[in-house]
Amino acid sequence: MDRQATPSDLIGRFAAIVGEANALRDERDIAPRLVENRGLYRGASPMVLRPGSTEEVSRILSLATETRTPIVPQTGNTGLVGGQTPSSSGNELIVSLERMHRIRDVDPVANVLVADGGAILADVQKAAADVNRLFPLSLGSEGTCRIGGNLSTNAGGTAVLAYGNMRQLCLGLEVVLPTGEIWDGLRRLKKDNTGYDLRDLFIGAEGTLGIITGAVLRLFPQPVGHQVAFAGVSSPADALRLFEKASNLCGTALTGFELMPRIGIEFTTRHIESVRDPLSEPHPWYALIDISTSDSAETAQTMVEALLSAGVEEGIVRDAVIASSVAQQQALWHMRESMSDAQKPEGGSIKHDVSVPISKVPTFMERAESAVLAAMPGARICAFGHLGDGNIHYNISQPVGADKTEFLARWHEINEIVHAIVRDMDGSISAEHGIGQLKRDELARIRPPIEIDLMRRIKWSFDPAGIMNPGKVISL
Amino acid sequence: MDRQATPSDLIGRFAAIVGEANALRDERDIAPRLVENRGLYRGASPMVLRPGSTEEVSRILSLATETRTPIVPQTGNTGLVGGQTPSSSGNELIVSLERMHRIRDVDPVANVLVADGGAILADVQKAAADVNRLFPLSLGSEGTCRIGGNLSTNAGGTAVLAYGNMRQLCLGLEVVLPTGEIWDGLRRLKKDNTGYDLRDLFIGAEGTLGIITGAVLRLFPQPVGHQVAFAGVSSPADALRLFEKASNLCGTALTGFELMPRIGIEFTTRHIESVRDPLSEPHPWYALIDISTSDSAETAQTMVEALLSAGVEEGIVRDAVIASSVAQQQALWHMRESMSDAQKPEGGSIKHDVSVPISKVPTFMERAESAVLAAMPGARICAFGHLGDGNIHYNISQPVGADKTEFLARWHEINEIVHAIVRDMDGSISAEHGIGQLKRDELARIRPPIEIDLMRRIKWSFDPAGIMNPGKVISL
Repeated sequence: MDRQATPSDLIGRFAAIVGEANALRDERDIAPRLVENRGLYRGASPMVLRPGSTEEVSRILSLATETRTPIVPQTGNTGLVGGQTPSSSGNELIVSLERMHRIRDVDPVANVLVADGGAILADVQKAAADVNRLFPLSLGSEGTCRIGGNLSTNAGGTAVLAYGNMRQLCLGLEVVLPTGEIWDGLRRLKKDNTGYDLRDLFIGAEGTLGIITGAVLRLFPQPVGHQVAFAGVSSPADALRLFEKASNLCGTALTGFELMPRIGIEFTTRHIESVRDPLSEPHPWYALIDISTSDSAETAQTMVEALLSAGVEEGIVRDAVIASSVAQQQALWHMRESMSDAQKPEGGSIKHDVSVPISKVPTFMERAESAVLAAMPGARICAFGHLGDGNIHYNISQPVGADKTEFLARWHEINEIVHAIVRDMDGSISAEHGIGQLKRDELARIRPPIEIDLMRRIKWSFDPAGIMNPGKVISL
Repeated sequence: MDRQATPSDLIGRFAAIVGEANALRDERDIAPRLVENRGLYRGASPMVLRPGSTEEVSRILSLATETRTPIVPQTGNTGLVGGQTPSSSGNELIVSLERMHRIRDVDPVANVLVADGGAILADVQKAAADVNRLFPLSLGSEGTCRIGGNLSTNAGGTAVLAYGNMRQLCLGLEVVLPTGEIWDGLRRLKKDNTGYDLRDLFIGAEGTLGIITGAVLRLFPQPVGHQVAFAGVSSPADALRLFEKASNLCGTALTGFELMPRIGIEFTTRHIESVRDPLSEPHPWYALIDISTSDSAETAQTMVEALLSAGVEEGIVRDAVIASSVAQQQALWHMRESMSDAQKPEGGSIKHDVSVPISKVPTFMERAESAVLAAMPGARICAFGHLGDGNIHYNISQPVGADKTEFLARWHEINEIVHAIVRDMDGSISAEHGIGQLKRDELARIRPPIEIDLMRRIKWSFDPAGIMNPGKVISL
């Protein structure tokens, strides 16, 4: 498709839909929307449109299809694969849902909450808590990220183990299609087998099939008992043994099981205010264990104590602490959630978001470490993540004293080394962050051609003008 | 599309793919595949093909697309909406997966099982149990139905409350596309955000987008504690109160909560051998409560006792019994599962498979009963089902002494009365059985046109020759 700079009269027609005050054309207003957190992508755009209603989104997309104007949807701009960043062509308009942030309805009896696509995750969590319910999605960026983006990336986070990711947390959607048509699929039903699963198709499509403007989300009872423990272990293999034990003992009461390396504890205690090492001696690896029970607080306490004593007895747990207050529980989680930020002062970080079958995590860790250190002696591997889901954020901080630019220039080379091992172990190169721009070409290379072809067929049948977030997920 | 009887040379080409022994052309062999359980549909077909491998399925579909020969996939032939029954045109070939019934792999460490599309559900359950794991899908037809059909209808059943339906129980698929191409999506990962969700699109597509030839299924730990209770209550509203109590008390340990009416107990005790009324006095409604715990057997016992005493204390539970042996647990479940069969000796039964938001079930029951009895005095409403999912099988047995044919002739009229109430309450006209032929036109009538249009776009982009199970789910 031949694209040129958007003509100014066309810009005016788009601006008229939302009103001048919500059509940002000043470079200073646009600039923050052109970059993403990691600084991997920097795009260009003549205008940011801030619609105030589903109807306005519909008119924008209808005009976009008519005039073949490419559109990049954006919510909290916290994505990690460049899915929300426009290309450098300068002819893509950004549609930001930031003004559409309402909680439309909360129903604690039916256990559902209906939110705009631009509702901030933390606001949704709070609205649920206000009626004594839990919305379990929990991410480091929850104060900034928004539901439309969470859905478009099928977000995961730390509670997937017990509650699933966004596909499991959503009952219905409202979507504006690239043609401007509105699909009202805001159903509140747990069971509904009436035709193809359009909902799960839009969830995880990274804004390439339409814009999610509203969603029915599932709420859960607030747990009655809650315990958080932190255990030092010798290896990922021992952490896995502890996970299996926890899984058998706690069943679905096991609401989190995170793995962290010693270097991650060093980084967080060094750089993140208020983080202290909870154990007196250092250990090679750590497990963060979260248990939530619905019957009684005592059950959670019995479970966590039984788990840790069995772990100590069998020589799996070297040392452990159980949080004795809500503040201590939050402090343990804060350490885990700031692990990525704590890497920043240490220089560049080459990141991966991979998954392998859970039983293969220890072998993956060993193989990846050997391969990475062989390619880059001195690399500081800070691999942490959701062990219970087989999902590891395999982050690599630069060697001490290395040049950051030179280090980051090897991003794709190191990715290729790690991803080759992941593929060999039947894993995924994007467990939860999505594809965006970052992994688009790699996905096309490693997946059977029929799979990419089926995605293209869906894309073209939903977006015949190819205007929705072009160049993301699949090339056209 | 203009269709004519399949020419005999073409029949021969299809037969050659599977070999003559597996190309059934004798009417007596074909006949059982032309009818479905309820006798609502009777189709015609010149041949049943029984491929022995994914490769053979691929060659069949490739030839079908090339020659525009319509194909009807069939597994256990237990579907309840005519999705597996050919049309009366006589030009559709049946492809039966009955020879592809292998369990390909069982991995109790990774908690996955890989099965052929033709594997019988009970065999999958047994293979899981053999390694001390649970495959939780449980249906009345589990001895006959097969995994490909369970997936194609996104089957639900009695354990959805705790474990979800087939979409939640499946990690990966192998699918032969209408063009004969094979998609190998047999992944074993819990988290994998790499592009559009093709898996959930094939699941629930009722064989209209391809044939599912293999699947990676999730296994779970076998529960340690298990308790089944049966309680008499006054009304669906009281049953709902008891469900909420059970939900809060047991959390995810609540693995089943079924609602049954007095007339259902009368039918089963009258017609099903070995079924006895477990309570000494009759009650208007009954709840079957299933609790499974992973930590200890005592927890399940404590939970069930606490639940029932709270229920009695608050006047919700009129009387109750806790099964004291595995045999008694099975007997209670057998009563529930034979409720549909027990209606048969009572004459015709007009059936519905609806869902409404859980909190609205009691109101739905009242409204539907008034409306049905106003239209058909003497109708015997035997409405039972998965209260915890808001899913009611709203079955209506004919009035005593009525003419069965005349009664069944009012099927659509009565459907319309019940479904109008369901729609008014934002419910679903097919909670778990699917659309098939039975509800295709109604779905098109009640859903927004854009929704049916999106399904059509997907259908044509996957099946350009329109050969896959034509006329099911959507008309073309």
